[in-house]
Amino acid sequence: MDRYLMISADCHAGPRPAEIRPYLDAAWLDAYDAWLADEPGQARHRAEHIGAPLFAEEAVDEFQEEAAGGMDGAWDSARRLRELDADGVVAEVIFPNSPLPFDVGLMTYQYAQDPGRWRAGVLAYNRWLADFCAETPGRRAGVGLITIDDIDETVRQVRWLRERDVFGGILLPGSAGVVEGQHAYNHPDYEPLWDVCEELGMPVHTHSGWTPNYGDFSSSVGIFLSEITWWAHRPFWFLVWAGVFERHPRMRFVMSEQKADWMIPTLKLLDSRYELPMFRQLRHTLPLKPSDYYRRQVFIGASFMDEGEWDTRHELGIDKLMWGSDYPHLEGCWPNTQATLQKIFKDVETRDVSRMLGETAAEVYGFDIDRLRPLADQLGPPLESIGA
Amino acid sequence: MDRYLMISADCHAGPRPAEIRPYLDAAWLDAYDAWLADEPGQARHRAEHIGAPLFAEEAVDEFQEEAAGGMDGAWDSARRLRELDADGVVAEVIFPNSPLPFDVGLMTYQYAQDPGRWRAGVLAYNRWLADFCAETPGRRAGVGLITIDDIDETVRQVRWLRERDVFGGILLPGSAGVVEGQHAYNHPDYEPLWDVCEELGMPVHTHSGWTPNYGDFSSSVGIFLSEITWWAHRPFWFLVWAGVFERHPRMRFVMSEQKADWMIPTLKLLDSRYELPMFRQLRHTLPLKPSDYYRRQVFIGASFMDEGEWDTRHELGIDKLMWGSDYPHLEGCWPNTQATLQKIFKDVETRDVSRMLGETAAEVYGFDIDRLRPLADQLGPPLESIGA
Repeated sequence: MDRYLMISADCHAGPRPAEIRPYLDAAWLDAYDAWLADEPGQARHRAEHIGAPLFAEEAVDEFQEEAAGGMDGAWDSARRLRELDADGVVAEVIFPNSPLPFDVGLMTYQYAQDPGRWRAGVLAYNRWLADFCAETPGRRAGVGLITIDDIDETVRQVRWLRERDVFGGILLPGSAGVVEGQHAYNHPDYEPLWDVCEELGMPVHTHSGWTPNYGDFSSSVGIFLSEITWWAHRPFWFLVWAGVFERHPRMRFVMSEQKADWMIPTLKLLDSRYELPMFRQLRHTLPLKPSDYYRRQVFIGASFMDEGEWDTRHELGIDKLMWGSDYPHLEGCWPNTQATLQKIFKDVETRDVSRMLGETAAEVYGFDIDRLRPLADQLGPPLESIGA
Repeated sequence: MDRYLMISADCHAGPRPAEIRPYLDAAWLDAYDAWLADEPGQARHRAEHIGAPLFAEEAVDEFQEEAAGGMDGAWDSARRLRELDADGVVAEVIFPNSPLPFDVGLMTYQYAQDPGRWRAGVLAYNRWLADFCAETPGRRAGVGLITIDDIDETVRQVRWLRERDVFGGILLPGSAGVVEGQHAYNHPDYEPLWDVCEELGMPVHTHSGWTPNYGDFSSSVGIFLSEITWWAHRPFWFLVWAGVFERHPRMRFVMSEQKADWMIPTLKLLDSRYELPMFRQLRHTLPLKPSDYYRRQVFIGASFMDEGEWDTRHELGIDKLMWGSDYPHLEGCWPNTQATLQKIFKDVETRDVSRMLGETAAEVYGFDIDRLRPLADQLGPPLESIGA
């Protein structure tokens, strides 16, 4: 084993608009076509969200050039395989790419203004993703979408995902507790969801992307960038205090593409509240302190982190951190993955690099290492090329 | 000058329910009496907010005993003076104490469900506070409440406060951008508010207390404690990105009772977004980076901080930090102020202690040092008793 076995714990995929049609329930096709045709309506919703385009035009042009055409690997399976192979990545965890039908997915928007549309978009994407993952057996683990306005339906969705055998977990909508009609994650009505995820070994994810609307102003992009990770962190302490980790010790919780530098200060804050005599009533409901639940069952899909962030890997737990390329997104390291890894891991021991680049993800998502090893021996970067 | 001149930049005051009646507009007296009598309704609103009592019963009992009767200084002016004198505090900045009429103030609740009631409560409290401050000339600076659903009315409120000559600023409601009908602070409609605060030299405050509702669950207290400071931080980056600091270079912004440990990481985050090539469009609207606006016009009403937090005083700016006792609240340092200060400042030079304990607050709030000095010479703790 003289090459790394690289698994990206954070990639994105989604079909082009026409390709989702066969996956939509027939009853929703007309509504979907109308939604697709209503470009001003879609644009208005997006403008309300963060106002202006997220990326500077020059940065987009530069990326298009570097990436030889950009994000087509989001839907083109053959191209995706070629690009990930060239990147040295033998397996990946797949989150949604935007836009998806009726704007379901990571970023946008105030879903569930129409629960039927929301569900139709979610089911269609999950079906598409099941097929997309099945094209390369053992190399793709999808993270399925769920709706949360009807818990029985949610549980059915999780069971459906598990039966497909190509999903590595579910994604919690970020909108819970903010959008009318969606309880925050401390609500007891969610108990069947945590039950089924624990029972079926489905990791529960949050991923940066969802935020409230900031209005159609030039300031909104800056505000979005200032709090986008916080909205993804937020369910963590809702689950801690609601005793979800206490009651579901085998449920795994993964926090993806939202950095890791916030975790230690946040655990310190939560523990310090828990331990303060004036709040000692918190201890009546939770026998362990918040950081104990973190250590027992939380993982960080760290994606790109700053150089200094990896230095905290032992405090965070070396088995907690999973690197991700964020392929095929502009803000990720692809197509400069090798150079990026050489830079961020230059002082990190090979043993630690190996865990963060793949071993932990293999364990969390159940990838079959024996099956992937031969591929890694061909594609993976040489051990001596990354790390200290 | 061998004693510290101590100004608490964070204290709380508010009348008992019957005492506010003379300050309410007559048209609202019946509604107020009905609201007061509706204890189940009030309890329900509070329960929806953070569910259970904030403090452990034993902690409340212990505080009552230590404080010889507890929080009566919130409304009893003579008692307050005696207690602050004994604490060594010669002047103070006053934020609201809960509950106030129609639940206006810091913590609760979803105000502006009825804009008329909200305004009636705000005006009554401001009138009461003006009289309360005037009882000890030069020693009390009130922070006035405002409503934000009608900007012309807001501007009139700020002008009224300035004319009273006993107010040290205004408090921004934390509910903006969350509660229906209240724009977030990046909305251009607020421009007249920033204009008038800059024109009149009225510092603009946020203070921890407001959060969204977490529901009537035992988990809600933990969630409240996990994010209460964040909701107070939040307007800072709304104002940064909206260019409010850029357009109002003389407007001062004070962030009270929300700790300081978050500020350096937050400035690093905001600056790093600002400087990333892929977001270079942010620089088109703001000539300075976020940390420059902080340095130019933001102050921290630090209240109680952890020992380590004061170690960052030079990075934060030694002229940025203002200590506060949080009198008469249980979570503050009173009635153990001297012992607390000895502990947290044990390695801090006298010069720095002096700034953080009073000099910066005197400057920000315009307290007359010459007038307060003789009092400090009697009441203030000896220089050698606190600091290194």
